[in-house]
Amino acid sequence: MTTPPPHGRTELPLTPTDAPPPLRADAARNRARLLEAAARLAAEHGAANVTMDAIACAADVGKGTVFRRFGDRAGLLLALLDHQEERFQAAFMSGPAPLGPDAPPRERLHAFGPAVLRHEQDHLDLYLAAQPTAERRHLVPARVVRLTHLTLLLRQSGTGADVELAAHTLLGSLDTSLVHHLLTRRGMPLERLEAGWHDLVSRLLPPATHD
Amino acid sequence: MTTPPPHGRTELPLTPTDAPPPLRADAARNRARLLEAAARLAAEHGAANVTMDAIACAADVGKGTVFRRFGDRAGLLLALLDHQEERFQAAFMSGPAPLGPDAPPRERLHAFGPAVLRHEQDHLDLYLAAQPTAERRHLVPARVVRLTHLTLLLRQSGTGADVELAAHTLLGSLDTSLVHHLLTRRGMPLERLEAGWHDLVSRLLPPATHD
Repeated sequence: MTTPPPHGRTELPLTPTDAPPPLRADAARNRARLLEAAARLAAEHGAANVTMDAIACAADVGKGTVFRRFGDRAGLLLALLDHQEERFQAAFMSGPAPLGPDAPPRERLHAFGPAVLRHEQDHLDLYLAAQPTAERRHLVPARVVRLTHLTLLLRQSGTGADVELAAHTLLGSLDTSLVHHLLTRRGMPLERLEAGWHDLVSRLLPPATHD
Repeated sequence: MTTPPPHGRTELPLTPTDAPPPLRADAARNRARLLEAAARLAAEHGAANVTMDAIACAADVGKGTVFRRFGDRAGLLLALLDHQEERFQAAFMSGPAPLGPDAPPRERLHAFGPAVLRHEQDHLDLYLAAQPTAERRHLVPARVVRLTHLTLLLRQSGTGADVELAAHTLLGSLDTSLVHHLLTRRGMPLERLEAGWHDLVSRLLPPATHD
């Protein structure tokens, strides 16, 4: 696993270079069906209650099939997360402005934080259940994609800060367990976190020029 | 566990309010002896290799004593971390300038990041071995003390940012697994992280007045 290379393209690969080879069509359909069942169960009963048994039952396949496909429950939760991430990644990489490529980089940076906050709030129990260990955290493909995206936007915006460190700082302020802590234990409204994001982006960018 | 209250004092309690009651003198000596043995073993063989057996052997007590005192290996690593933290906390709460209270808050903020980076680099394997789960991360006493300290210094420096969120942002840039990732996997020199810290502090504070 390597960190994203610096580049100037606006399109990023959705899958990291060490992703497994694509599945055969029937296997891919099978996998999609299992993930749909898992997503439905997670939405109805919470991600903490998604079990391999329950998915096998809901998708009407043997439990062995679920284990062969995902390895274990952690693998399944990560796959489910990837499934949610794909839709979200499409929004910020090729969707409409202000998240997508039609908006200027400064606007896209400002839009990114609130979009992540809302996306993670919608799937908070899933993100928490799938939290990687501290050792693995920075290698998770979804995180690498976000970091690459922020690095690119920061570079395009002409920040005077160390681009890679600034991208980590921005991403750190959206960390799932931090957001969970602030919303749930500290009782902060989401709007306060959004305002904090906008303030941080402004401090990392040079003053806006209105021309 | 609650987050630190806002206050204007420069002295912070070393132990959180829900800390266990103090030990009897002989029990405290016993505990200190076990921690010294554990620290020696960690320094010689790495924290990953500190076992309950090895500590019992090095301190010449029964294994049962070590388990009674620390619960399990995770409890022992946390206690060992606390032991290292106490010395570090004394440095930034009551030590000499620029870390300690004799320096102005802006200087103390600038000094804090490099001090944490160097302290954690010296004990990196211990900090990594004792990494709490994502769920617990924000409740660890050492983290709460650092957050309180940064919140206080930010408030004293008159930042225009949301003080609590800015403190989390600063602390996030010193996160053990992030620092480990940047130093080890990305091969960044420590000096680059220190420069990133100074830049971030400057961006969070109002421009310095030279009077």
